[in-house]
Amino acid sequence: MTSTTTGRLAVLGGGVIGLSSAWRAASAGWQVTLLDPAPGSGASWVAGGMLAPVTEAWPGEEDLLALGVDSVGRWPGFAAELDAAAGRPAGLRTEGTVVAATGSGDRAELDALAAHLERLGRPTERLSGRELRRLEPAIGPDVRGGLSVPGDLAVDNRMLLAALRAAGEKAGVTFEARSARRVREDGGRVAGVCCAEGPDVDADVVLVCAGAYSSALHPTLEGLIRPVKGEILRLARRTGAFPPPRRTVRALVDGRPVYAVPRDGDGLVVGATQAETGFDTEVTVAGVRDLLRDIERVLPGVAEYALLEAAAGLRPGSPDNLPLIGAPGPDGLLVATGHHRNGMLLAPVTADAVLALLRGEPVPESVRAADAARFVAARSGTGR
Amino acid sequence: MTSTTTGRLAVLGGGVIGLSSAWRAASAGWQVTLLDPAPGSGASWVAGGMLAPVTEAWPGEEDLLALGVDSVGRWPGFAAELDAAAGRPAGLRTEGTVVAATGSGDRAELDALAAHLERLGRPTERLSGRELRRLEPAIGPDVRGGLSVPGDLAVDNRMLLAALRAAGEKAGVTFEARSARRVREDGGRVAGVCCAEGPDVDADVVLVCAGAYSSALHPTLEGLIRPVKGEILRLARRTGAFPPPRRTVRALVDGRPVYAVPRDGDGLVVGATQAETGFDTEVTVAGVRDLLRDIERVLPGVAEYALLEAAAGLRPGSPDNLPLIGAPGPDGLLVATGHHRNGMLLAPVTADAVLALLRGEPVPESVRAADAARFVAARSGTGR
Repeated sequence: MTSTTTGRLAVLGGGVIGLSSAWRAASAGWQVTLLDPAPGSGASWVAGGMLAPVTEAWPGEEDLLALGVDSVGRWPGFAAELDAAAGRPAGLRTEGTVVAATGSGDRAELDALAAHLERLGRPTERLSGRELRRLEPAIGPDVRGGLSVPGDLAVDNRMLLAALRAAGEKAGVTFEARSARRVREDGGRVAGVCCAEGPDVDADVVLVCAGAYSSALHPTLEGLIRPVKGEILRLARRTGAFPPPRRTVRALVDGRPVYAVPRDGDGLVVGATQAETGFDTEVTVAGVRDLLRDIERVLPGVAEYALLEAAAGLRPGSPDNLPLIGAPGPDGLLVATGHHRNGMLLAPVTADAVLALLRGEPVPESVRAADAARFVAARSGTGR
Repeated sequence: MTSTTTGRLAVLGGGVIGLSSAWRAASAGWQVTLLDPAPGSGASWVAGGMLAPVTEAWPGEEDLLALGVDSVGRWPGFAAELDAAAGRPAGLRTEGTVVAATGSGDRAELDALAAHLERLGRPTERLSGRELRRLEPAIGPDVRGGLSVPGDLAVDNRMLLAALRAAGEKAGVTFEARSARRVREDGGRVAGVCCAEGPDVDADVVLVCAGAYSSALHPTLEGLIRPVKGEILRLARRTGAFPPPRRTVRALVDGRPVYAVPRDGDGLVVGATQAETGFDTEVTVAGVRDLLRDIERVLPGVAEYALLEAAAGLRPGSPDNLPLIGAPGPDGLLVATGHHRNGMLLAPVTADAVLALLRGEPVPESVRAADAARFVAARSGTGR
């Protein structure tokens, strides 16, 4: 790495990871150019905004849980700093999360999640359907039980993107509305960026954080990041309709996960489908039908809500569901991508890791499992 | 009426009725000004585009059926003339219509419709589910029987609006992107239009054809036209999905009517909900959920289609479901509104009637039942 001095940093991608990293790097004295034809318009624009590592925990993904728990712990400080730096709210919501189960299979799965969390030393509060409805009267009678996880938070993704952009501008980030084509090297180290149009950009360090589009930007990432399409709906309460929940509501409905994340102004973001259909951002009939059917089972009052928007985004999936964060080589190359469903959640810890890498310092302990070099080593091992 | 000479005509409203009438009147020598802040953007923009009087027939609405049958007969000539005048296609589709029934109650209702049409001397062709699927393989196994009505046609509403606008411009119609506030009178006869902004417009004749917004424009229409909200979806086939039907498919699904009207490029317009919630153009969760659920019962392949758009429009409802077409007084006032679900269908006969009224000639026979004066007389009779 280029030691502890600052220099010219090119950030490839203006989603939540790129914007967070650019803001932090510029604040630390780096001369930052962020390349994105439309910053904040991709998966980050579509995201539900859950900051929910615990209710997302999955046996076998303990490294991801630890990373997420670390990052959600950084969120209040990150948001406070961003509020101040941007002069506008970062959109953090601290009302917490409940998980709801409908059928008996769903309740069994929730029991398994609770037992798993207990084994990890993270006990959760079990609730009956009636207790859940006392917390959130919007939850309907089909819900038979659930969990309350006050530490799983949420963020208004679009408020966050606007705040990050504003903070980046104030910190001196140069936004160039162009596409990067690939990282440019010179003499075995990174020298800048070749662009799809316009002049190349010279840089001492290049950070690849282009989400689902990252793989094409440097051979090190080839074949590692794939697009995983997700569809969401944006709803808003209409006059006379039942008020939305205050907490994020996650649910299992006949085995299918669905969530509703509150927004200011009695809005809800409902998500999310999951499909591996390449670089495809079309909203499908089946996707919308499933989301509506499932969320109505959990929050029946949304039938009377307005459907403001249906959108699809491309999550950047990685081979093991952990992101790729680090300096896998050559010299001057940083990557922070593959955040899959967790870009919003992991933005603070990722930005902190990027800053550490820029300074030549060790990354946060929780980020080590996500070291981008793990696949480079594996490739060498298999002779690829 | 102002005799058979021409003069200045102000057309209030740029939906399909206003655009058709303006084009026809300008072609006949009238100096036409059309006032609409956004022509072609209201209910006409949202319309499914069925030209389907027979499959829409309802016992007790024989006048509307006769009017619709007259107008669908005028459609091919109207479309050919418009194609030529506009230099672009009017969007007429002549593949015909099938009606599909799912449950036994739906089949009974279809039997009643067929018997009703037979009594009126309009026999239809009964089909089994298998025969329907032979005509339209997109129809799914839940459909147990139906009707084929080759004479019920369809039009691409957005192609039509673009063609009407082009033809109007070529014929010399002046389009003013402003809202009319009310018809202005002087000495007991119409003198022009007061506008919401900008100067008033002087005119010898004013045609009120502002759809759901008509009632406010002249006291004669007060309380007669009400908004009836309708929601539609626009779908498009995705790679690998089953091809859409070629004909319009109407269906009854557990008593609920639903339709899918084909568009060029493997598109479908699916409609329509019906709600009396005032001037409300929000798309609702319940509306979209119902349309998706019902159309999937009939055309299961649409699950794999893209959902391009969900929109709501305001049909102009009248007290008896017949439009209001005529010269109810004072002198110089024409009205052509209250077309409810049938604006596209009734555009040709309405434009012909408007032209006749401008010329002081009798309107087409079928239009007499729709004479706008019928409510004026009723009001005088009740002393209102």
